[in-house]
Amino acid sequence: MLSATRIKQLRSLHQKKYRRHENQFLLEGNRLIDQALSADAKLFEVWMTQKNLDSPFGKNILQKFEEKKIPFSVAPEKIIRQMSDSLNDQGIIALAPIPVYEKYDNPPKMAIYLDGIADPGNMGTILRTAAWFGIKSIFRSHECVDPFNSKVVRSAMGAHFYFSHFEAISEEIVLGDYSKSGMEILGSDMNGSPIQSFILQTAKGWIIILGNEAHGIGETAQTFITATISIPGIDGMESLNVSVAGGILLHTLTS
Amino acid sequence: MLSATRIKQLRSLHQKKYRRHENQFLLEGNRLIDQALSADAKLFEVWMTQKNLDSPFGKNILQKFEEKKIPFSVAPEKIIRQMSDSLNDQGIIALAPIPVYEKYDNPPKMAIYLDGIADPGNMGTILRTAAWFGIKSIFRSHECVDPFNSKVVRSAMGAHFYFSHFEAISEEIVLGDYSKSGMEILGSDMNGSPIQSFILQTAKGWIIILGNEAHGIGETAQTFITATISIPGIDGMESLNVSVAGGILLHTLTS
Repeated sequence: MLSATRIKQLRSLHQKKYRRHENQFLLEGNRLIDQALSADAKLFEVWMTQKNLDSPFGKNILQKFEEKKIPFSVAPEKIIRQMSDSLNDQGIIALAPIPVYEKYDNPPKMAIYLDGIADPGNMGTILRTAAWFGIKSIFRSHECVDPFNSKVVRSAMGAHFYFSHFEAISEEIVLGDYSKSGMEILGSDMNGSPIQSFILQTAKGWIIILGNEAHGIGETAQTFITATISIPGIDGMESLNVSVAGGILLHTLTS
Repeated sequence: MLSATRIKQLRSLHQKKYRRHENQFLLEGNRLIDQALSADAKLFEVWMTQKNLDSPFGKNILQKFEEKKIPFSVAPEKIIRQMSDSLNDQGIIALAPIPVYEKYDNPPKMAIYLDGIADPGNMGTILRTAAWFGIKSIFRSHECVDPFNSKVVRSAMGAHFYFSHFEAISEEIVLGDYSKSGMEILGSDMNGSPIQSFILQTAKGWIIILGNEAHGIGETAQTFITATISIPGIDGMESLNVSVAGGILLHTLTS
């Protein structure tokens, strides 16, 4: 049985400062938690409604919890909702430690630099897409939305457990090293070379910079770019959403 | 000066039934309203904070309102916030008629069928991406989220004003016609042909089906598919987000 103090403490994990202090975050929803298990994520504890447990999904996931010896309990819907940040009742919530990632050292062969991504849905979708295309190194500017925010976590669908590098670090350090190593530093822009005819100038490796939704790639990061790619579209339209543009770039670079 | 009754009436447009009844919807935010003007959208009226008006953006857009003879007034921040559905104060809000689209008649050469897209951010991003790649015909199942919902409108960045067809219509009608016309009906799935080697089997035209976030393409729509495409990724990862997968498919089909 969860005490009121414990519920309050778990709820506090929806705020960045408590997440950082406790070094823990919450996962909500069947698909996300299932995906976290597939990625061998460590989970401290899971709470689930009786209704969800009685569903085919519930029976299946319960077996996985038992195999992995993850402490599990049934909690009333009301309590799950109190702990949840989502408007839609997900019927399951898990407490996980923030994964320990490798410290940045040398530029990895394929990486993404997130330069001020502000929207949690975009951040999560970019992480999910990166994991899908096998990118294990994500660096982010200090201006990005906190990636352990529950909306980011929901959209990322377990990608957090896939990365080797996932660090907030200044663009000067990371992009500076890519530059010194003669690796490709890619930006995306309406005036770049069309992606259909784009060719990497070196096999040493690359990093893609994805910029802020409203202001694009910042001035400092801009100075490091070695190649600008465009995704041609219809004249006069707004640009593509950053997670869609990122998906098209990653698909092209990895295929 | 906006009366309390008028504010209440405008606010009611955040609910689908009032939007349908009034045949009007609200646009919020500088970029969206600017983009709507570029797409030659009809706007009934615009309200803006003094602060936003005094910004470089404000001076620029005011000129456009004058050129296009769009009634415009300054409103206190508090009032704009009352009318707004967004948590972030956007400082500008516009009232627009729901555009009049062509009635569906014959299958257009390039189209998208949205089969139960539930998340407003995904719906908006798909619309924005479709417009970017020049797709002017969007059909949607009755189960989709209402596309004039303000979160959809914000994410779509003016795409609503670009389409010729934008209609809620059953899959049997639209996909049935594509089928009878010998056109390609495309679905996306992990077990399909890899997109890198995918070739259209006919030059008559195509429609892409994008399915629900949790359940994918519905059974009825499935029966019409003539080719299934996959976007290969890392084993064991969750699928791609539907708007990212749609972006990659559209980019490949139109380039």
